[in-house]
Amino acid sequence: MGEFELIDRYFKRPARQAPSGVALGIGDDCALLQPAPGTQIAISCDMLVEGRHFFADVDPANLGHKALAVNLSDLAACGAKPLAFTLALALPQAIEPWLAAFSRGLFALADAHGCELIGGDTTQGPLNICITVFGEVPVIDGRSQALLRSGARPGEDIYVSGTLGEARMALEALQGKLALPAPLLAQARTRLELPTPRVALGLALRGVASAAIDVSDGLLGDLGHILQASACGATIDTSIAIDLIAAHAYFEKAAGQAGREQQLAFVLAGGDDYELLFTAPASIRDAVEAASRASATPVTRIGRIETQPGLRLVDASGKPVSGRFASFDHFA
Amino acid sequence: MGEFELIDRYFKRPARQAPSGVALGIGDDCALLQPAPGTQIAISCDMLVEGRHFFADVDPANLGHKALAVNLSDLAACGAKPLAFTLALALPQAIEPWLAAFSRGLFALADAHGCELIGGDTTQGPLNICITVFGEVPVIDGRSQALLRSGARPGEDIYVSGTLGEARMALEALQGKLALPAPLLAQARTRLELPTPRVALGLALRGVASAAIDVSDGLLGDLGHILQASACGATIDTSIAIDLIAAHAYFEKAAGQAGREQQLAFVLAGGDDYELLFTAPASIRDAVEAASRASATPVTRIGRIETQPGLRLVDASGKPVSGRFASFDHFA
Repeated sequence: MGEFELIDRYFKRPARQAPSGVALGIGDDCALLQPAPGTQIAISCDMLVEGRHFFADVDPANLGHKALAVNLSDLAACGAKPLAFTLALALPQAIEPWLAAFSRGLFALADAHGCELIGGDTTQGPLNICITVFGEVPVIDGRSQALLRSGARPGEDIYVSGTLGEARMALEALQGKLALPAPLLAQARTRLELPTPRVALGLALRGVASAAIDVSDGLLGDLGHILQASACGATIDTSIAIDLIAAHAYFEKAAGQAGREQQLAFVLAGGDDYELLFTAPASIRDAVEAASRASATPVTRIGRIETQPGLRLVDASGKPVSGRFASFDHFA
Repeated sequence: MGEFELIDRYFKRPARQAPSGVALGIGDDCALLQPAPGTQIAISCDMLVEGRHFFADVDPANLGHKALAVNLSDLAACGAKPLAFTLALALPQAIEPWLAAFSRGLFALADAHGCELIGGDTTQGPLNICITVFGEVPVIDGRSQALLRSGARPGEDIYVSGTLGEARMALEALQGKLALPAPLLAQARTRLELPTPRVALGLALRGVASAAIDVSDGLLGDLGHILQASACGATIDTSIAIDLIAAHAYFEKAAGQAGREQQLAFVLAGGDDYELLFTAPASIRDAVEAASRASATPVTRIGRIETQPGLRLVDASGKPVSGRFASFDHFA
């Protein structure tokens, strides 16, 4: 199968109404985006490599989903509305069932978000998936409505959406480092392989959150990016954070003190969570709650931004918690 | 070296005036482009894989240049003004001299075109470079000024810029399939490793060319894309085309009939040329010449668009030329 036939068969879709904003899609040297007046284009790019970001035997439909999901998660963290994406794909060989499943998983998520494939590249090589995604952010009175990492201020609340740590639990179970009951593994694996980008929450948080980031490297590491960009510090209440793992009942039942520490580590430094971590003034907790309800996405208040630099972990009584929770770093 | 340190050291650049159009660069979940009113964003994406698009021992500075050049070439083919790009880079290891040279070559070309690195991704994996590039195209009276593949009409002239075939000569020499004198190899290798994207010509051809494409897969293959998109055919005068190879003196001296056929094959189906192939009405040859002069880029008229479908090769007397010149296809 030639490159152009591969594109035609698996990635070019029946002619249909292009979403507003896409002036020209696949098929020329460039695609053309026509942003609506008064908007900016938010752009993000993530590359997934076999053996590093996914196992060689992963279900290709899940892989198609995840490759786009991790990019949509970056749009969500900026409060951008998904518009379009490009896909560059290096494949060792063109295996038709693999391609069919991959494109099915990819387009199912793309369609759910009205996000159009507008171009890309296919080539032979070690399996590598690089997606660049484009979203729209309004500019109101000359001010971009994008949620940035740099907007957190001392005194503000820190929130995180959904639950954390299951993706890392699944990873460690699949690597043979952790024994999990089958139903729990299946549930955790869904979080690892089919993450839900929090696009609706990101949109609902425009004008509400002061700063936001998506949790891809681990809660503490990603909070560190907000603190650095915003030049402030934070305290996290671990007595609340620890139960953000969906499997908390398992840890409570199965594990003693060591288990609780492992549980906290999964939550604070798991990675691959794709939840939104954000800050907002304490005076608008109602607005945060409304954004959570409007987007049907649970959020939990886990701490507070402070003037004092650094990141402090405390227990329910406010006492410091010790422990090293290194964040995930690709070249560490 | 960690991922963030790597980005800081080699890809984050001293603060300076961001080019107009870039509202936010590297460092957040997304970059933000703010297109000028009345413009579209042209987007293209190319992935380069070791062993497929470049040799493992290529000079990393040349590789940095080429990875961006092939993307700028797509902008040129659309008549888009370079604005910004994202870079996703998978590396087996973070080798500092390699990274320093790669980023030097990359940024030298980026700076020459005022094209800002606004984001991307770095990860561990088999060497893979994926760049997505963004350019600006004006919309005048509701009409995009982008040069597309679909605008060629019967009776129009076909032009190509610069020279063709040297990149393929260099490739075959480096693969041991072709013996070249050292000075000729050096010259051809420059074309292979340091292609010049024809950005100035692309801009000058806005409002002049009816269709355009960049020659990356080979002249005939890429002309085929114009013919398909424009639903017409073409005749190419091989007596003119054959001398578009810069090394024509070598072939004339060294080779008999077989050599001349090889020479023509390099020109017509070499690939990796990154010249512009375009069409324009015969009534505006003056305007094409003016665009060529304004951009200091030579162009040669090599044929004509026709109603009859298909691609015909003729000699100086108009007689059909035989021979198979298969285009380069990554999965063929």
